[in-house]
Amino acid sequence: MESRNDGREALVVGVSMTAFARHEDRAVEELGEEAARAALADAGIDAADVEVAFCGHVFQGITAGQRALSRAGIAGAPVINVENACASGSTAFHQAVAAVRGGSAKIALALGLEKMGRGAIPADPGDVRLSARAGVPLMPGMFAEVFRAHSRRYGTTLEQIAMVSVKNRSHAVANPRAHFRAPITVEDVLRARPVADPLTVLMCCPTSSGAAAAVVVSADVARQRCKPIAVAASVLCSDRPGPGDDPLYMIVDINTRAAARAYQQAGIGPDDLDVIELHDCFAIAEVIHYENLGLCPRGEGGKFAAAGASRIGGKVAVSTSGGLLSKGHPLGATGVAQVVEVVEQLRGESGARQVANARVGLTHCQGFGGAAAVHVLTV
Amino acid sequence: MESRNDGREALVVGVSMTAFARHEDRAVEELGEEAARAALADAGIDAADVEVAFCGHVFQGITAGQRALSRAGIAGAPVINVENACASGSTAFHQAVAAVRGGSAKIALALGLEKMGRGAIPADPGDVRLSARAGVPLMPGMFAEVFRAHSRRYGTTLEQIAMVSVKNRSHAVANPRAHFRAPITVEDVLRARPVADPLTVLMCCPTSSGAAAAVVVSADVARQRCKPIAVAASVLCSDRPGPGDDPLYMIVDINTRAAARAYQQAGIGPDDLDVIELHDCFAIAEVIHYENLGLCPRGEGGKFAAAGASRIGGKVAVSTSGGLLSKGHPLGATGVAQVVEVVEQLRGESGARQVANARVGLTHCQGFGGAAAVHVLTV
Repeated sequence: MESRNDGREALVVGVSMTAFARHEDRAVEELGEEAARAALADAGIDAADVEVAFCGHVFQGITAGQRALSRAGIAGAPVINVENACASGSTAFHQAVAAVRGGSAKIALALGLEKMGRGAIPADPGDVRLSARAGVPLMPGMFAEVFRAHSRRYGTTLEQIAMVSVKNRSHAVANPRAHFRAPITVEDVLRARPVADPLTVLMCCPTSSGAAAAVVVSADVARQRCKPIAVAASVLCSDRPGPGDDPLYMIVDINTRAAARAYQQAGIGPDDLDVIELHDCFAIAEVIHYENLGLCPRGEGGKFAAAGASRIGGKVAVSTSGGLLSKGHPLGATGVAQVVEVVEQLRGESGARQVANARVGLTHCQGFGGAAAVHVLTV
Repeated sequence: MESRNDGREALVVGVSMTAFARHEDRAVEELGEEAARAALADAGIDAADVEVAFCGHVFQGITAGQRALSRAGIAGAPVINVENACASGSTAFHQAVAAVRGGSAKIALALGLEKMGRGAIPADPGDVRLSARAGVPLMPGMFAEVFRAHSRRYGTTLEQIAMVSVKNRSHAVANPRAHFRAPITVEDVLRARPVADPLTVLMCCPTSSGAAAAVVVSADVARQRCKPIAVAASVLCSDRPGPGDDPLYMIVDINTRAAARAYQQAGIGPDDLDVIELHDCFAIAEVIHYENLGLCPRGEGGKFAAAGASRIGGKVAVSTSGGLLSKGHPLGATGVAQVVEVVEQLRGESGARQVANARVGLTHCQGFGGAAAVHVLTV
């Protein structure tokens, strides 16, 4: 299984990301170059020493990784573009870790990038099992159905998921790279423009562009660097053809499996986590991922959010960057940007949104149709 | 460097491919399923035992690998879609080999698939450094310029490259999976419909669809299988930003580097090769790749072809499948299909086009803008 971790240790020694924003005036190659150069500078590693690079993206066309990375001075060494829907960036990071663990490289780079346009999401993102209703945007429509199912089964309320949006925005206030940073209230969220009944626009992630990069190295290379962060687990699962009539199945099963394998690989449990970046593409998704990651019992994600357990200073700090909801969600960049946030938290470099004594972090991404990736990072 | 091969041994124990054809009535998922199922059956391996799968494609949309492989019974284990232009299939195979060498999987699957439509090639395939002339299709226009440069510098003639088209078609006659199988003459090639002066349609690969799959396993798994074929070298290089004013640079430099590293990794030289599948997207490309692979001195590729050195029964059998020129070139499928052909040759299963006593084979693919992959396979 992919949980086998009898390979070499892999550590993150450099991270960086662009601001997430519309970036209407910048080419995606330029965003990728900026993130890659800054991550290498953070690592103190020369571009010429990168032995393999993986680039996660969804919509950026042929050899987007080469276009960005050749500008950053990476040429000659293999560049591999990877795609796994919204988990594309996580897949790039997973592959960089695999290259170092497997010994084919001592220095690997993971880059994620995406320039999103309005309407960039296609009508049918692969093997999606929930049908969209006429006139409702596909993904919001799917998650409206997910919310209704979770609400019916467990009593989750709109107010509870609105509190997730408010919490993530409160974290984004302190993150200069987040797309949306103005504080909001539960009332703001509930009264915002409806997108797919009953979800409002503030319960849905925005359309953002950006890039993020991480440098993954072997233990001998890491010893010469400041503050290396160890990759204790790197798990990628794909979707199993499942029952199509349960809207919760697709958001529960694959993520729960990926988390269980990651905990096993890292030798930790949910109670050991200090900081988490998860796939809060919609506020209801964050609530269900609390349950999938074992932060609270099944069905109690809404209460977990409402109790403030997932804010900075709570039981475990979730979406400290602002999450997809407020930092933004440039598809291919997201998974790597999650690693950037958690690495900075574990280094103690997160400024006003720093989680005190953060020593163990987790990232989680889901690409519908599909893949789920979970990484555990430790000081 | 990526040439480091201190990992475990990787062997190919199952291969299969669909026929290459227009396939206008078949979904790409169906083609991928067919190839994957047949490769697993060839290996005697159950889909549930595949630990990781890589899917190479260019134009098939989000999570195409999952869509095809879940139909073939691969679900749960990680599926990773990879893209490197025309080297996408080779990249999938390279990654499957890397997973086994690195120890993260004992059983890996490489799938390549592509459903090509008319006009599927975009106007700007990445960082292409030759400018197209108005009214001339981009890639044929580029290779017309490449032909003129090679002809000016080395005296290569249209008749010589026409002989490549004739040779590859003569091989395809005996390959039931090839797209075009009717024998042709040099006169046919020279008098065929002009595409980009002076190239005729029979000097250009056709627009084909199809899929191919290969099962890569560790030594302990291979011991229980029939006729395992060892992967002696697996090299992937990316393009270096280079001088834009030399039309030969982009078709010489990266491929020569990739071949040199592959020979070093395998501990062999060009004289050891019995069978080769190379990236003959255009007849002039095959001639230049003879030189890049060291089969003949630089500039003598045209003479090498004209002397019959590259046909079955010649010095080294090149494009025994019919090559991209006659078998077809479904972008993401091509690199894996090359592995299928060479593995079958090394097993002695190639029927009327069998190369006598074939013991060492090579595959070569180039994705413009860019990547080049070279694999060496041995009995």
